[in-house]
Amino acid sequence: MQWLEDMTPAAEFDLGHHHFSADDIIRFARDFDPQPFHLSEEAGRKSLFKGLAASGWHTTAVFRRLLTAFEAAQRAGAGIEAIPPETPLPVSELRWLKPTLAGDDLTFRLTVTEVEPPSTHPGWGTVSYRAEGVNQRGELVFLLTGRAFARSRASG
Amino acid sequence: MQWLEDMTPAAEFDLGHHHFSADDIIRFARDFDPQPFHLSEEAGRKSLFKGLAASGWHTTAVFRRLLTAFEAAQRAGAGIEAIPPETPLPVSELRWLKPTLAGDDLTFRLTVTEVEPPSTHPGWGTVSYRAEGVNQRGELVFLLTGRAFARSRASG
Repeated sequence: MQWLEDMTPAAEFDLGHHHFSADDIIRFARDFDPQPFHLSEEAGRKSLFKGLAASGWHTTAVFRRLLTAFEAAQRAGAGIEAIPPETPLPVSELRWLKPTLAGDDLTFRLTVTEVEPPSTHPGWGTVSYRAEGVNQRGELVFLLTGRAFARSRASG
Repeated sequence: MQWLEDMTPAAEFDLGHHHFSADDIIRFARDFDPQPFHLSEEAGRKSLFKGLAASGWHTTAVFRRLLTAFEAAQRAGAGIEAIPPETPLPVSELRWLKPTLAGDDLTFRLTVTEVEPPSTHPGWGTVSYRAEGVNQRGELVFLLTGRAFARSRASG
C-alpha cells in the first residue's frame, strides 16, 4: 500500500490481469490441488465445470502475486523502504463465484473500504479492502476481503 | 469429505504434515509472492520474521493439497465416485498467526463444526469446518474456517 494518508475509502486500484493457460492451471494443480478437473482437459469437460478449471487457490495465488507487485510499486512510488510488520492480517471472506477455465483472463481490482490509524504497530495503520477478479466476459469470479498494513507519513 | 451421515460436529481428522524447506519456500514465492523476506535467507533474517519465511499463501496452498488428498482418500474409502458440485464453497476466515520459517514442519488437522443436509445441490450436504496448522513447537500458526460439500448416503 502507499502512504496511509493517501488511502481513502472507495479509492479503487487496478491490479492488472492474468491469462490462465491450460499448462498454468495443470502445473498449480499438480503441486497444490490435484483433483481430476484441475489436471486434464478431458476430466474437466466431463465435470460440472465443462472444461479444465483452475483451482480456486490458483486464482487466489495469482491475486496475491498481482497484489504484491502493486504494493511494491506503491511503496517505491512513495519512497517507502520499510517493510510492513511481520504478522499478515487476516482474510475475512474468500469466494469463488464462477469457474475459471483454461483460456480465461482475469482482471483484478481493489477497493478501499476502511482506513484505520496506527494502533498496534507504531507508524503503520491498516487499510481494509475488497478485491474482485472479473473475467473477459465481465463476470465476477473471485472475491476477497481483507486488511493490509499501510505506512503512515507521520511516522517519518 | 466422507459420507455426510458419518460427519458429526466435533469430529477431528488429521490431514498430515509438511516440511517447509528453503527451496520450497523460495519456489512458491517466486511464482506468487515475491517479497524479499520470502525469497532469501539474508533478507528474511534482516526482516521482522528473523528468517526465511513462507508466504501465508504457501501455507494455505499446502493445506489445500493435504485436504485434497484427505478428501480423495475419504471418498475412495466410502466408495464415492461422484465429484462434488462445481462451485467451491467460501472461506469465512483465514489467519496466519505466526511466521512459518524454513525448516518448520506444520501438521494440519480439521474439526467439523456443523453439518447441514442437502438443500441447493441434491445428494450433497455441507460440512462446516475449522482447519488448524500447528508447527513442531506446538504453536498454532494457521487457521482457516470454511465449508465443503459431502455426499449424502441417501442419494444412493
